[in-house]
Amino acid sequence: MIYNIQIKVMPLKELLDPQGKAVLGGLQNLGLSQVLDVRIGKHITLQLDAASEKEARDQAEQACKKLLANPVMEFYEIGLIGQ
Amino acid sequence: MIYNIQIKVMPLKELLDPQGKAVLGGLQNLGLSQVLDVRIGKHITLQLDAASEKEARDQAEQACKKLLANPVMEFYEIGLIGQ
Repeated sequence: MIYNIQIKVMPLKELLDPQGKAVLGGLQNLGLSQVLDVRIGKHITLQLDAASEKEARDQAEQACKKLLANPVMEFYEIGLIGQ
Repeated sequence: MIYNIQIKVMPLKELLDPQGKAVLGGLQNLGLSQVLDVRIGKHITLQLDAASEKEARDQAEQACKKLLANPVMEFYEIGLIGQ
């Protein structure tokens, strides 16, 4: 079965996010002064062929560990698995 | 009230995503042959000070239109609004 998996990879909360800070400045210059903080990471959609939801999630977990996320600087969340 | 807003900005489905294709090749070289397709976009977390959930969502919508997403190449989804 084909599963679509949504993965979010974000900079760790303890780390500065210069890209987010730049976008925060941009939004405030555009008049959106209610925005207090911005953090920017990656959103990855995987299409996976797996026998079960559990297998799909395991494969996604492996993909994150081996390639998609750098644990020194980033954390990831795997979510929204639909067929 | 403080709202945390999750925004996903992805390349349009009709467009080629060279970054995704490169990562797909990388995952297959690592032995994850069950992965059929990869698409990569941005995940943005906004912290917003707003009076209501509706106002927070409106502000996020404006931020996307004015700065965060380029409608020629990308679509966005605003989700998971929590206090």
